[in-house]
Amino acid sequence: MITKQATISAPEGLPTIEIVREFDAPVDRVYRAHVDPELVQQWLGPRRLTMRMDHWDIRRGGSYAYTHVDTDGSEYGFWGAVHDARPNELISQTFGFDGAPDDATFDKAVFEDLGDGRTRLRVTSVIHDVAARDAFLASGMEGGMNESYERLDELLAAQQ
Amino acid sequence: MITKQATISAPEGLPTIEIVREFDAPVDRVYRAHVDPELVQQWLGPRRLTMRMDHWDIRRGGSYAYTHVDTDGSEYGFWGAVHDARPNELISQTFGFDGAPDDATFDKAVFEDLGDGRTRLRVTSVIHDVAARDAFLASGMEGGMNESYERLDELLAAQQ
Repeated sequence: MITKQATISAPEGLPTIEIVREFDAPVDRVYRAHVDPELVQQWLGPRRLTMRMDHWDIRRGGSYAYTHVDTDGSEYGFWGAVHDARPNELISQTFGFDGAPDDATFDKAVFEDLGDGRTRLRVTSVIHDVAARDAFLASGMEGGMNESYERLDELLAAQQ
Repeated sequence: MITKQATISAPEGLPTIEIVREFDAPVDRVYRAHVDPELVQQWLGPRRLTMRMDHWDIRRGGSYAYTHVDTDGSEYGFWGAVHDARPNELISQTFGFDGAPDDATFDKAVFEDLGDGRTRLRVTSVIHDVAARDAFLASGMEGGMNESYERLDELLAAQQ
């Protein structure tokens, strides 16, 4: 399997981040891997972290919370609220981290059916100020995201 | 009662709106007027609209939905998800309109105790692109907001 690259855009001076990534799986399976908590636990986050799920309820007005546990026992809590979810089309949700609770992002994930069993995922995030965005980018989110999507590739391939 | 003016900032080219408004009431009452659905119904929106509340659950992971009914029977549906709420300090939530369901804002309301029974409310909104922000500003939101806050002034004065 060839590892795909995500494209990340973070325009100078704008409080936005756009991530585009393609997957060799049909849109319904890519979507389901985002909403089924048992699947999410298998790919979200770097490999060395264990994901302890509190709840994962992806529907309009739903919410989620989980803790990533590091190999040294350190815990990182994340939570968010779900603005909207349309199967195989769109999920929009907030994303917060206990370590910076006032600097949440609002993420809109659009799932595009490319045909031939392929899917394009486009995630646009906004945050309340550019400095918070730059801190988020500097936190190593790009490496964690790439590792997550590699794990998602593997999960989707194993489902074949 | 002298009507207070809200200050609205919408910097050119940035997908953000900041609203600052002061109230002649202590912070706990201004906060409560945002979280108690029976109070919210008395001030949110222009006077000519009737607010039909579906639910209003302002807590971390909560959500809300309501319909504004115009004098001619037209209905406008709004909904959102609550990212966080800290009593007398902060509410962050998404805000969506049925008429433009993919252009939601993410609003962070910060309540500041000014002492002497006065409160400053600062609401910062972000949206996924500047064009959507400009359409939102052009929709007459400023007039509706000013009328809402006048009604909130009246509600808070009546509670004295």
